[in-house]
Amino acid sequence: MSNRFGRLFSWTTFGESHGAAVGVVIDGCPAGVKIDVSQLQKSLDRRRPGQTDKATQKVLVTERNELDQVQVISGVFEGVTLGTPIMVMVHNRDQRSQDYDKIQKSPRVGHADDTWVQKFGHVDHRGGGRASARETVARVMAGYFAEQYLVQKHPKVQVTGFVKAIGEHSLSLDDLKNMDQQILNKSFNVDEHAARFPQKKIKIDELLLAAKEQGESYGGVVEVWVDHMPQGLGEPVFGKLKNELASAMMSIGATCGFEMGEGFALTIKKGTEVHKQSDSPVYGGVRGGISTGERLIFRLGFKPTSTILDTAKAGRHDPCIVPRAVPVVEAMTWAVLADLDLLQRSNRL
Amino acid sequence: MSNRFGRLFSWTTFGESHGAAVGVVIDGCPAGVKIDVSQLQKSLDRRRPGQTDKATQKVLVTERNELDQVQVISGVFEGVTLGTPIMVMVHNRDQRSQDYDKIQKSPRVGHADDTWVQKFGHVDHRGGGRASARETVARVMAGYFAEQYLVQKHPKVQVTGFVKAIGEHSLSLDDLKNMDQQILNKSFNVDEHAARFPQKKIKIDELLLAAKEQGESYGGVVEVWVDHMPQGLGEPVFGKLKNELASAMMSIGATCGFEMGEGFALTIKKGTEVHKQSDSPVYGGVRGGISTGERLIFRLGFKPTSTILDTAKAGRHDPCIVPRAVPVVEAMTWAVLADLDLLQRSNRL
Amino acid sequence: MSNRFGRLFSWTTFGESHGAAVGVVIDGCPAGVKIDVSQLQKSLDRRRPGQTDKATQKVLVTERNELDQVQVISGVFEGVTLGTPIMVMVHNRDQRSQDYDKIQKSPRVGHADDTWVQKFGHVDHRGGGRASARETVARVMAGYFAEQYLVQKHPKVQVTGFVKAIGEHSLSLDDLKNMDQQILNKSFNVDEHAARFPQKKIKIDELLLAAKEQGESYGGVVEVWVDHMPQGLGEPVFGKLKNELASAMMSIGATCGFEMGEGFALTIKKGTEVHKQSDSPVYGGVRGGISTGERLIFRLGFKPTSTILDTAKAGRHDPCIVPRAVPVVEAMTWAVLADLDLLQRSNRL
Amino acid sequence: MSNRFGRLFSWTTFGESHGAAVGVVIDGCPAGVKIDVSQLQKSLDRRRPGQTDKATQKVLVTERNELDQVQVISGVFEGVTLGTPIMVMVHNRDQRSQDYDKIQKSPRVGHADDTWVQKFGHVDHRGGGRASARETVARVMAGYFAEQYLVQKHPKVQVTGFVKAIGEHSLSLDDLKNMDQQILNKSFNVDEHAARFPQKKIKIDELLLAAKEQGESYGGVVEVWVDHMPQGLGEPVFGKLKNELASAMMSIGATCGFEMGEGFALTIKKGTEVHKQSDSPVYGGVRGGISTGERLIFRLGFKPTSTILDTAKAGRHDPCIVPRAVPVVEAMTWAVLADLDLLQRSNRL
Repeated sequence: MSNRFGRLFSWTTFGESHGAAVGVVIDGCPAGVKIDVSQLQKSLDRRRPGQTDKATQKVLVTERNELDQVQVISGVFEGVTLGTPIMVMVHNRDQRSQDYDKIQKSPRVGHADDTWVQKFGHVDHRGGGRASARETVARVMAGYFAEQYLVQKHPKVQVTGFVKAIGEHSLSLDDLKNMDQQILNKSFNVDEHAARFPQKKIKIDELLLAAKEQGESYGGVVEVWVDHMPQGLGEPVFGKLKNELASAMMSIGATCGFEMGEGFALTIKKGTEVHKQSDSPVYGGVRGGISTGERLIFRLGFKPTSTILDTAKAGRHDPCIVPRAVPVVEAMTWAVLADLDLLQRSNRL
Repeated sequence: MSNRFGRLFSWTTFGESHGAAVGVVIDGCPAGVKIDVSQLQKSLDRRRPGQTDKATQKVLVTERNELDQVQVISGVFEGVTLGTPIMVMVHNRDQRSQDYDKIQKSPRVGHADDTWVQKFGHVDHRGGGRASARETVARVMAGYFAEQYLVQKHPKVQVTGFVKAIGEHSLSLDDLKNMDQQILNKSFNVDEHAARFPQKKIKIDELLLAAKEQGESYGGVVEVWVDHMPQGLGEPVFGKLKNELASAMMSIGATCGFEMGEGFALTIKKGTEVHKQSDSPVYGGVRGGISTGERLIFRLGFKPTSTILDTAKAGRHDPCIVPRAVPVVEAMTWAVLADLDLLQRSNRL
Repeated sequence: MSNRFGRLFSWTTFGESHGAAVGVVIDGCPAGVKIDVSQLQKSLDRRRPGQTDKATQKVLVTERNELDQVQVISGVFEGVTLGTPIMVMVHNRDQRSQDYDKIQKSPRVGHADDTWVQKFGHVDHRGGGRASARETVARVMAGYFAEQYLVQKHPKVQVTGFVKAIGEHSLSLDDLKNMDQQILNKSFNVDEHAARFPQKKIKIDELLLAAKEQGESYGGVVEVWVDHMPQGLGEPVFGKLKNELASAMMSIGATCGFEMGEGFALTIKKGTEVHKQSDSPVYGGVRGGISTGERLIFRLGFKPTSTILDTAKAGRHDPCIVPRAVPVVEAMTWAVLADLDLLQRSNRL
Repeated sequence: MSNRFGRLFSWTTFGESHGAAVGVVIDGCPAGVKIDVSQLQKSLDRRRPGQTDKATQKVLVTERNELDQVQVISGVFEGVTLGTPIMVMVHNRDQRSQDYDKIQKSPRVGHADDTWVQKFGHVDHRGGGRASARETVARVMAGYFAEQYLVQKHPKVQVTGFVKAIGEHSLSLDDLKNMDQQILNKSFNVDEHAARFPQKKIKIDELLLAAKEQGESYGGVVEVWVDHMPQGLGEPVFGKLKNELASAMMSIGATCGFEMGEGFALTIKKGTEVHKQSDSPVYGGVRGGISTGERLIFRLGFKPTSTILDTAKAGRHDPCIVPRAVPVVEAMTWAVLADLDLLQRSNRL
């Protein structure tokens, strides 16, 4: 029961990274939502390596050819959701589990393999089973349906994820102001920025290329802004917007921290100082666990990937997964919002 | 359905802060757990104002007389759980809702009142309803039962919460080493430290007394260590130990951030640097979402309370809620662990 | 988790029959529903022994004095639901567990006692714990709130439960026609009929009085009609109206069968014969698991109570629990309908 | 969320009858269960038309060629469950939705089509969408995994479903005694009997062939015996074995009634009469909602299929679905038992 997310917009993911396919069954997407399979495919393509922009392709594309061609098996008819369960899946075309056979007896440092023995009495040595980035394909697919539901219900709502920091390199206040301006103008597209890191000072592609060559890896921070946020979403006690988001985000692999609004920076400010400020940046658009309608702001920290040089070659991993995490984080945001939006329908007579 | 926490060790809280009572129904505590009502009462007393030690009483005790006498209504017979639902409650003895009548037409800055109108079409003006620290009484009661279950199943497991920072004042490495030593010796008791802040350099009681007089407030950080942690707890995808903890913790009022292990500090380190280190402090005892058996470490940030001078007098709030949050954070930790421990019973043939 | 009923209108019951109290927490009743505590009290009184009418009081009233005074502890303010969890409870005033001490070592024939040892490793000998008619108090309270929600949302909807058979005595077609007529006229009140058995041929009170004296007991059948049923309630696969009702009804103690519409009588008819008929009596107002808007009709069988002469004196049970079951069956009907009504809010964009 | 069944052995079905595929995701099957895909295929083949035995093939086989070749997509590796979600599916090879195009504007009598408009704002005219016998494929697949779990945990447990009545023709006491004897000898195989109706007096195949030619249809009764039933399964209040079974069974299409043990026959017996009898046949092996370890007995009524002559040709349906329902009823039985068996793991310290 722990491969399921959401109370009403409820979905269950399946598939091992090196099994036949990964996918999701969504049980709770309302009927009447228009679906465009080519858009869904594009959502998926965004999480593939080397998709940020042309400049970075030589950096991030690995040999692995994940075509990730999506199949909508049920729940959609003539481009509209039926209200029945939606099953979407992607076959794993390139199942090179032989590479993984080599490492099956030496669980990798920082990987989940050995804890699985503890848990299930076995380890599926084929690439880490469910504890792999491949599992996030299912999240992105669920997120696409959640997004379509929400934007067709609240046409102005807008989720923008971006890389705020890669290792010690962080966006400046000017970078953030530029982004803010572009979001207002509706001209911002995170995918036009190398590594989804919207700045120009650092040559981030060169940094990552060098890291790849050296077997080095970087962590970082993803931040999300939700503009034109519907008011009143989130439930008072255990369904607070902030704890639902925290759960969604911290369920993503390699995450190490979650902050709402100003986050930990708030813990060192005094009350008189804080309450002079306008609310939104302070609390991130949430009060008492419920959305205020202001911009929702939260951040998610990623540790540097655990794969070092030799193993990296076998497993063909990225030097920095943070840019690829952006669409996953956005998808989980949509999923949380869709679920809380449906829950809100039951709050009043 | 959003006042419920846990899949198997599942509990639902009830009660408005200025209604008749607050309480919890636990549906899923196994039969045969020994219960000591006087211990349960002591757990509750720990979250009352002014309970940390004698030195701080003059600082933290407010006029509010919350006797908080616990009543075990069902599910326990002759000191042992029956396997039936456990209902425990505490009457609200001192329901001075008249104080709140004054402020009912001016929702307080930073308080949840106005978002509730948005949500439910009304505001229960009596002290904030469910969005009050009073709601945490139910969590502490649920946590007591979770703790009893766990320590009777895994006798060595030990949860230690403490204040790591109040405003800009933070524990030093030496303070942490002392604490670590005392935990190994089983001589550490967080309640012996003023404001549950285990250090001696800062006169924290004087700081808080001054803050109270000036209508100032402080946020801070609570950290939790779980020693002798059972291995293999946590489920691979959406029931990861880290996201279950994040959800539990971020559901507590006034929280603004959650970190596992080294948390955001990890995001700026390089992979080669991180993976030289031993695992536990780095990842906080979790790998792939599952406990490794090493010390579990996580942190929770609290913003400064939103109540400023005048309103504070009416509502009788603390200058810093962080010390009082410690037993609540510990309770939520026990609740998460009990639930994941029961879930783990179903993972193998 | 198995003391909880409902997905959205979700409630958890608690309380042993001879513990301090029985009650329910409803987590999911919308805000804004008007509540009248005196009506709630009347609902509860209906399930007490000897409440059907004056004529039968000497038959059905036992010595047991269950005052059953309801307390609304949370979730309601100034007569309106807040959207927060509603806790309602009733103290057990007369806890004569000493009577039960005598029988604690000889589990009664047909009672649940010995299977509980198997299950929980113990038996709470005090009157059967949760497997007692006392547990239904909580259902009636939950049902009252469900009813208020539904009749304030769909003002015409009307649930009528009645005893269709006691032992081998069954209502005639004429009795049913009379009842149908009175329901259309809104002049039918089941409580005006001895033993809630709306007929005049049999002196049912004398039959039951004789049974009580002889230590005999009767089973019977309760039928429910829902008029002005909202269309479209019930979910296609596992949330069908018929299986939700079946689960709700068969969870009541002493039940042995459930039928929808014509029920088992349909199994011996030919298709051509059935499909000539108009739909409602045939299928009971449900098609494909979803309400058609026609009268909903279903039946619930009760076995004769297992308590025979000697034990009956100790346990003070009824010779026939079927009349007392009517308000419980009605309550469960309201609970199912409220839950499916809230679920239906999420089915369309 | 209403396409999901089970709390711990929890599964979600998907797929429209005339879409691309039908299938199920099982989230909660323990790791370490041995799986034989050819056996799973055989389970599926049992619910296809014309599979009861050679004699009946000319009766029941329709033109429809449902190859139903099962694909295990995830959760199983080298013949053993991994503890990860199991996805199994079957493609719909023969999607003759054109036949259904003809009838899309005239919803069929007794079919679910028009209520779906009410519910979802549309009707998926392609063969009834989810309200089709095709949906039961997913149940049989889930049931196979539940069965494997249970028989590997409790090797003696045995579920036997059979047709007890077709229309007015019912098994005799002698038929039942023969069957009982053969079950004890482990020589009973329901699939060796025409129409899974274990008797010899009636030429049931000729009856059904004639019905098919005349456009007639029959309902009937399926009965299930569970021998060597584990004791203590079922939860006291809303997770009673009898209400879980009732919900599971009444969720199957075309069902109209459910009985436990002697069922409605018990309602007309007197208490003194009933309690002389030995327990098992009376209550069906359940007391207080919990299994006693005796043979579990329950019955499920099916109405005659609603499809009459002309439509039948287009839709190619059976004159009597009751024999084909047997494997579905058995599958749902296994699913309920597996879930309650896993729940029972949490009942004691």
